[in-house]
Parts: sequence; C-alpha cells; structure tokens
Amino acid sequence: MTMGAQPRPGASAPGPSGASGTSAASATGLLAAIADVGVDRVRGGYSRHGFDRAELALREWFVAESRARGLDVEVDRNGNLWAWWGKPGPNALITGSHLDSVPGGGAFDGPLGVVSALAAVDLLRARGFVPSRPFAVVVFAEEEGGRFGVPCLGSRLLAGTIDADTARRLRDPEGTTLADAMRKAGLAPERLGRDEESLSRIGCFVELHVEQGRGLIDLGRPVGVASSILAHGRWRFQFTGEGNHAGATPITDRHDPMLPASQLVLAARRAAAAAVGSRATIGRIVPVPGGTNVIASTVDCWLDARASDDATTRSLVTEIEAAARDAAAAEGCRLEVTEESYGDTVIFDPALRDELAGLLDDAPALPTGAGHDAGVLASQVPTAMLFVRNPTGVSHAPAEHAEPDDCEAGVAALAKVLEHLAGSER
Amino acid sequence: MTMGAQPRPGASAPGPSGASGTSAASATGLLAAIADVGVDRVRGGYSRHGFDRAELALREWFVAESRARGLDVEVDRNGNLWAWWGKPGPNALITGSHLDSVPGGGAFDGPLGVVSALAAVDLLRARGFVPSRPFAVVVFAEEEGGRFGVPCLGSRLLAGTIDADTARRLRDPEGTTLADAMRKAGLAPERLGRDEESLSRIGCFVELHVEQGRGLIDLGRPVGVASSILAHGRWRFQFTGEGNHAGATPITDRHDPMLPASQLVLAARRAAAAAVGSRATIGRIVPVPGGTNVIASTVDCWLDARASDDATTRSLVTEIEAAARDAAAAEGCRLEVTEESYGDTVIFDPALRDELAGLLDDAPALPTGAGHDAGVLASQVPTAMLFVRNPTGVSHAPAEHAEPDDCEAGVAALAKVLEHLAGSER
Repeated sequence: MTMGAQPRPGASAPGPSGASGTSAASATGLLAAIADVGVDRVRGGYSRHGFDRAELALREWFVAESRARGLDVEVDRNGNLWAWWGKPGPNALITGSHLDSVPGGGAFDGPLGVVSALAAVDLLRARGFVPSRPFAVVVFAEEEGGRFGVPCLGSRLLAGTIDADTARRLRDPEGTTLADAMRKAGLAPERLGRDEESLSRIGCFVELHVEQGRGLIDLGRPVGVASSILAHGRWRFQFTGEGNHAGATPITDRHDPMLPASQLVLAARRAAAAAVGSRATIGRIVPVPGGTNVIASTVDCWLDARASDDATTRSLVTEIEAAARDAAAAEGCRLEVTEESYGDTVIFDPALRDELAGLLDDAPALPTGAGHDAGVLASQVPTAMLFVRNPTGVSHAPAEHAEPDDCEAGVAALAKVLEHLAGSER
Repeated sequence: MTMGAQPRPGASAPGPSGASGTSAASATGLLAAIADVGVDRVRGGYSRHGFDRAELALREWFVAESRARGLDVEVDRNGNLWAWWGKPGPNALITGSHLDSVPGGGAFDGPLGVVSALAAVDLLRARGFVPSRPFAVVVFAEEEGGRFGVPCLGSRLLAGTIDADTARRLRDPEGTTLADAMRKAGLAPERLGRDEESLSRIGCFVELHVEQGRGLIDLGRPVGVASSILAHGRWRFQFTGEGNHAGATPITDRHDPMLPASQLVLAARRAAAAAVGSRATIGRIVPVPGGTNVIASTVDCWLDARASDDATTRSLVTEIEAAARDAAAAEGCRLEVTEESYGDTVIFDPALRDELAGLLDDAPALPTGAGHDAGVLASQVPTAMLFVRNPTGVSHAPAEHAEPDDCEAGVAALAKVLEHLAGSER
C-alpha cells in the first residue's frame, strides 16, 4: 500500500533537506538533519526503536526526503519502507538499511546505509543516470531488535523466517506487543508475514554499513565488501529463585537467582574464549523486583552467542547452558532457556562480492560478527554489503564513528556499484 | 505545619473506613481498604515509593482515616505525617511505621504498623481510654529507600543522621531529585533537616512490624519484641568498561563490566557465607545501555551488606570490594565504590524490651537483620518494636503474609503496650 500522509501526534520529523532531482546531498549532511532525533539523555548516543516515537519521526523524515527526490514511498505488509525511483517492478535493484538503533547506540549503524542510498541517488541523477531496471531505497523495520528482542525483524518477516503469529505476540519491556505498536503507528499487523510480492521484486540487494570492527583501519582503506556473517542467535535465560528480604534472610536459606545468573556471565566468557573466533555476551540482565534490599525472585539474562558455523555456535550455547544449569541447581533455582532468534552463517555470493571488490579498486573482503538485514536476504536473493571505515572499530555505542570523507567515499562506491548493477543481469 | 487539604491530581486515595471515635476497625479491614493502591502488575506485589502517586494516595488515605478518628494531622519538615490524639506536646507516646514498599513488595511491611496503630487507637477508645500524655500515630517517609536509594530517609532526616543537602540531591532512577519530588507533592524541601521540635516531643516510640523471618513461627508465638538490628549499609559499585558490539568485538579486545560485576555477586556470597550471621546481597544491577547485542559500557550494582557489628560489616565490605577491584583490573575496567547509606548495630533499650515482653506473656525477644525507622530513632529516644508472626518468613516479596488472627493479636498487644506506657514515665 502507498504510505499514507496521516499526521502522527508527538512525532516531530525533521523537514526534508530540500534536495531536488539535481542537487546532491551529502551523507554527512543528511545525518546532521536527524542528529536531534532519539537522543538518549540517560545512556548517551541514540535510542531509536521499531515504531517508537523516534523511529516513527525518522520514518516520516525518510518519506519526506524520498518525496523531495520524486521517489514514491510504499510501506509493505511488514512495516518496511520502499522508496521507488521510477515504476516498481520485478528484478529491482534495491539498496538501503535501517533507521533504528540499539539502546544508547551510535549515529551510523543503520542510518549511514539509508542516507548513503539517498545521496547515491542524488549523485547518479546529477550524472544524468536513469535506472534501466526498477530501483528502490529500502528502510527495514526494527533491525536491532532493541524493542521487541528479535533482530532483523522486518527482513525476517519479509523472508518468512519468523512466524507471523510469534512476531505479533512479541512484547517490548513495557509489555506492548508488536501488533499493538504497529496498530498505533497506523499499520495493520494482521497482514504480517512472508511477502512474496515484495520478495519477488528484489533482483539484487546491496546494503552499505559502517564497519563494526577495525578491518579497514588496519588495511588503510575507506571502503570494503562483506564476505560472511557469523552464525548468531539470542537466548533468554530465566532463573527463578525465591524473593526475600536482603537483611533478614540467612545466607543458608537463600535461593538467589543472581548467583547462577552471574555464573552464566562467567561461563559465557570462558566458553567463547576457548573457541577461537566465537563470541558470547550478556549485555542485558533484569533482576525482578530489582530492589537494593531485596533478594531477586527471578533474573532474566539474554545471551548473545556467535561463531563461525552452526555446529560451533550450537556447541558453544550447549556448554554455556550446562554451566548455567549446574549453577542454578546448586542455588536451588529453576532455569528456563528460550531461543529468541537464530541465524546460520551467511556467506555472501562470492561472485558478486568479487565483482564489486574489483569495481572498487580491489576493495578488501571482510567477515563480520554483526547481523544485518542483508544477511537475512542473502538466502533469498543475490546480496552484497559495502563497509565504510570506522576509526575506532567501536559500534553499538555513542563512540561509533565514520569520518565525513569516508562517508562520501562510501556514497561514491555505492553509486558506482548501483550504476554497474543497473546495467547487469544481477 | 498542618496538613493542607489541597487536592493532588492523579492521586486517588481510598475513602476513609468511616471509623468513628467509638467503632473499632480491624487491621485486616484497614489493609483491605488500601489493597488496590500501588499494585505492581509487572513485578507482582506492591510498588509504593516515597512521594510517588501510590504513596501520596496512601498518605491521603491516612490523613482521612486520622481525621475520621478526630486526630489532627501535621506534616513535619521532612515529610513525615503525625496524627495527634489530643494536643501535641512533649514526652509524647508515638507509634506507627511507614506506607512505602520495596519494588514489588508485600502488603504488610510498613502498612501493618500504621493500620495496627489506628486500630489500637480504636480499641483503646472503645475501652474508654483517654491518653494522659501526648499521643500520636506517625507515618515515616521513604522507609525502604525504594525510590531515592537511602532507607529510613524520613527518620534519618528527622534525626539529622543524613545531611539535608545530600538528601535534597538524591535522585530516583528517572533522574528526579528528592527536592523536586517533594515540591511536586506540595512540600517544602528547603525545610529538610534535623527537626529538634519534632524530636523533642517524642517521649517513647513503639513500632509494630510484620516479622521478616521465621522466629515466631518456630516458637509458636503470634507476637514478639525486637532485641537488636544488624549493622547495615548500601554501597554502589560502578564498573566502567568499553561499550561495543556484541557480535563484532573479539573476546580478546573486550573490557566488559558485566564480568567484574558478576564476580562481585559471587564474592559477596562467599564473604557473607564465611562470616556467620552476615548477609551480603546484590538485588539491583543495571547495565548501560542494556541491549542484548551490546557489550555494556558501565554496570551499576548495589551491595546490601549487614553483620552483627560495625567492625564485621566493614571488614565484610572491604573483602568484597577487594575482590571486585581485582576482577575489574583483570578485565581492564574501572571501579568506583560509593557508600550510599550506613547504620551501626542497634540494641533496643533492654529494660523497655523486657518490660514489654513481660507485659505480653513473656513474648520472645528476637534480633532482626532488617532496618527500621525505630532503629534510627533508637539512638535518640527510648524505642521498642513489636513483631507479628509471618507464616513463611518471606518479606520484601508478594508472598509476605500475616494471618488475620495474628494481626489482631498484634493490635491487642500494641494497645496493651500503649495503655501501659501512657501511664508510665517512659
């Protein structure tokens, strides 16, 4: 359906940059226009989550920027935005990324891929380029899973790798379901699910992203291409003990779920350190009730685990879970483990990867531990990623950065790739 | 100052029970009247914190109940409520407790002492008793420290054991200061501080409280008296590492503050288990930013530590802090430790304790690990506590309970004690 123009109370979207079909916006300039949206005064950085006030403001901004360029914006069944340059159709060339962030995240993870896509459109237009195949800039919904817990939610729904009923029932930390949040944003959650129409139109997808590591810094290159993504998933560990008074309860009478939760954190580190290239992290832990003078009754922890392949990842999680179960039993606590998301290793199409690397002065090919919508789509359609250098390698944190010159090098590289692919069969 | 009758928007206080000077309310009936206020739908139990909507509603309810009994309510400089039976004056007999709870706490911790005081007034009146000395029911503010972090805040301010400037600057998790919260509640935070006038009027203070342990259950007695309170305090441990991407950051490059925070939890348990009768708990932990796919940049943990005496408590905390510092250094993290509150061991006046025990059929004398406003006042004025049996011993949790018969036994015991003390020199 075509994006409605209904105003959303409370969402204040920045105005469009005024870019027309002939003046080219810079990626840095476009990022500056949204620098005030979703600033997190408590954590630092940005908190922009799927269908929240900040992300809705960014979506409105994207719609306005697209319209200012004469692009027609559609929102698909799963809440992803598609800005079409010309007529929508099959075998389309698609580029874009996401606008949401992790809690307290950086300014680049997600938005850089969107603004670079818009800037690349401007650059191609300024050169007189007219796409010879359908062409769209896409914005995927809730890529970080920062609100509803499942990363790449919009692309997973599009690809049908998450069940629509399961998705509708996902809840944010305040208890709001995805269905309710979408409804409040004027969308129709009953239409969620694998979207054959949208999928069948994608001929090729290219996502530009800030690098989340130091590969390009170490190689002295501003732009690279992605080779692979680690297998990765999220598991919720819920430890249940017995809530009680922190002062009045003797140590010997306690069933404190904070104890096995702490052992989980240490076990995750031990197991990941022992399996080269693997990662295991607990960055989110919620004791309930969470009072200083209260022994928690339950503790929820989320394990983020990643490794080179499915077998290694599964074995890593099995080892960590076994240690957590032992620790829970020793404290007289129960443990329930739920897999909240999982994605196998992604190897990006090697021929496409090499073709693009060649086009970009033999840009280096880099693996990554970070998940992306491109990783979800890679099993469905030819997919590639470009990375832009990050001076510190830090990501998912306010210090995440890319220099303006590198951002423009990214735009130039993306424009070159799109121009090339527009004339190819891919 | 006399409590104003200004309406507070949003606070819906239950109406008074309609108790008059001659009809006696039961403790259980009074508790039932406030059973809907501050219910915590997420954690279970109640969340009623100093000057929040729920606690303000309870304060209004207390004012209405007091007025229905012909008691004159004053609010002191520190936000504590005093309901006077007759004329305020020196050498007053004071009873009462608090209305706030821990997050997700039980229905009895605090309110039982307040409703039992009101019910005891009814009982004494029904017997034709008229107090021969000034007499008041008190409600202390923010006893649990569930909002501003410092337990017994109202009584500490009254006694001058916390600096007024420090108190005014205390912040709740949303960043609201105590000063702002009090101002919003119609109080004057510039008047905070040691209150000689109120203190000088207290001749004797008796607090009734649900037991927070199994002492009375094991002894088969409905009511006991307090002998002592453990030395106890709260320390904030702030670990600072480096926020980064949970998937893209190799294990060897990490400075993850969740690791030393977990070691702190385990060290607290080890140290407390090794020192008989000591307690050390981490029930509140806040990683920032708290995203599943994000290595935390900082983690705040609150240590609640208690032991038989000052030296043992200090040594317990020193041992735990040393372990936390080692763990922080090993992970390349910084650690800052702040003492947020501390109170030395309280030994309740032994002569008063024995006198009351004798009056109550040789009620058992029990030590407790839980802090109380009575513990703060014990260094200033003759103070005693009555405990009411708790069938499971669980407290600071929704399962906290006292049977109706035991509650009424508590009211009868409190009335007997007050009647006795009204005729004594204490």
